[in-house]
Amino acid sequence: MDEVRIIEIKQNVFKANQINADGIRKELKDHGSFLINLMSSPGAGKTTTLTKLINTLKEKLKIVILEADIDSDVDAKKISKETGVEAIQLHTGGMCHLDAAMTKQGLDEIRTEKPDLIILENVGNLVCPAEFDTGAHISFNILSVPEGDDKPLKYPLMFEVCDVVIINKIDVMPYFDFNLEKCKENILFRNKKATIIPICAKTGEGIDNVANYILELLRNFKGKEE
Amino acid sequence: MDEVRIIEIKQNVFKANQINADGIRKELKDHGSFLINLMSSPGAGKTTTLTKLINTLKEKLKIVILEADIDSDVDAKKISKETGVEAIQLHTGGMCHLDAAMTKQGLDEIRTEKPDLIILENVGNLVCPAEFDTGAHISFNILSVPEGDDKPLKYPLMFEVCDVVIINKIDVMPYFDFNLEKCKENILFRNKKATIIPICAKTGEGIDNVANYILELLRNFKGKEE
Repeated sequence: MDEVRIIEIKQNVFKANQINADGIRKELKDHGSFLINLMSSPGAGKTTTLTKLINTLKEKLKIVILEADIDSDVDAKKISKETGVEAIQLHTGGMCHLDAAMTKQGLDEIRTEKPDLIILENVGNLVCPAEFDTGAHISFNILSVPEGDDKPLKYPLMFEVCDVVIINKIDVMPYFDFNLEKCKENILFRNKKATIIPICAKTGEGIDNVANYILELLRNFKGKEE
Repeated sequence: MDEVRIIEIKQNVFKANQINADGIRKELKDHGSFLINLMSSPGAGKTTTLTKLINTLKEKLKIVILEADIDSDVDAKKISKETGVEAIQLHTGGMCHLDAAMTKQGLDEIRTEKPDLIILENVGNLVCPAEFDTGAHISFNILSVPEGDDKPLKYPLMFEVCDVVIINKIDVMPYFDFNLEKCKENILFRNKKATIIPICAKTGEGIDNVANYILELLRNFKGKEE
């Protein structure tokens, strides 16, 4: 059975929340708030990374977190408790992704006055969230070492839409068949302009690099506002 | 900001492929073919587990693999090459899950006469695949240690619909904050009848347990046929 047959299953993928997304981006821009859409597989370390990142940035920036989850609220509680910033839990009611309308519901609940930075932690999923523009100004993905260096090949759209890929859990690299250079190559194959930042959220290694990168993004964002 | 507000985003989740799924189950039963729906996060080790499992079982059973992927065909090729069994690649065209109609398209392409066992490797995703009955007789999930022992709490439906949970990558347990007992407890909280089998697909540890469990499932399945 050497020959592998391939069957294309064609499906219409639902689109057209683009207008909502563009509206969100414009409105946030008017308020000087920069929105990051943070995506990853389940268990890649989004919440731990966020917690470390907020504690590095919160003296410099007014930050709000929108935490999307299917039905638990542990992540928003953890972030709120460990960082003190405003964290809002969005329940998707079983939905596998956030679209712009859902994001808007979260944004409308923010009480912090004109936050500089809003980070939306999307549902842990490498497929669906990539298909929906949330209205964010930029999308980040966290790829963790145990998932394998081939993930950009298998989840093309996710790596095409993310301008920043954080490679997390680099401390366990010796225990996995994970080639960092190969991984970077696979990421750049999907998006040749991607910024790649290796970190270990658990120990905090590399978090400063992510923080500095975000500060630079914000300088550009606020600069363009004038 | 101690208080965390929770906003429910209500969504209608598309259902009603139940009739197709029931039709598949009946038709397969008439042919004596048992269908397993294998789900997991990206990178949990579905393909490696399958390869080891097939090589353990292929002398005893006629096996066919349906490999769903968004657009690559590396998994079907790997399985076909390393095991020699019939492996069919299903391209979902960006879709995040398989439903019964998609599964049927794959089943219709099988050339092996009346296989005993068909394993459908679903798209790597802990959310959407859980919502769609593929027509399988049973659903398995592979949860890998690096994802964390809390995943059953965060992806409830997946762990509710899976009767078997394989805990993979137990060799790296010392390097992660992963409590096996806590994980089992969380799985059983979602489905108190779940069968839990810890393995390390890379070294082959525990594969025999999965193989024996499948042989037992097949004995019951074939027994009921008469």
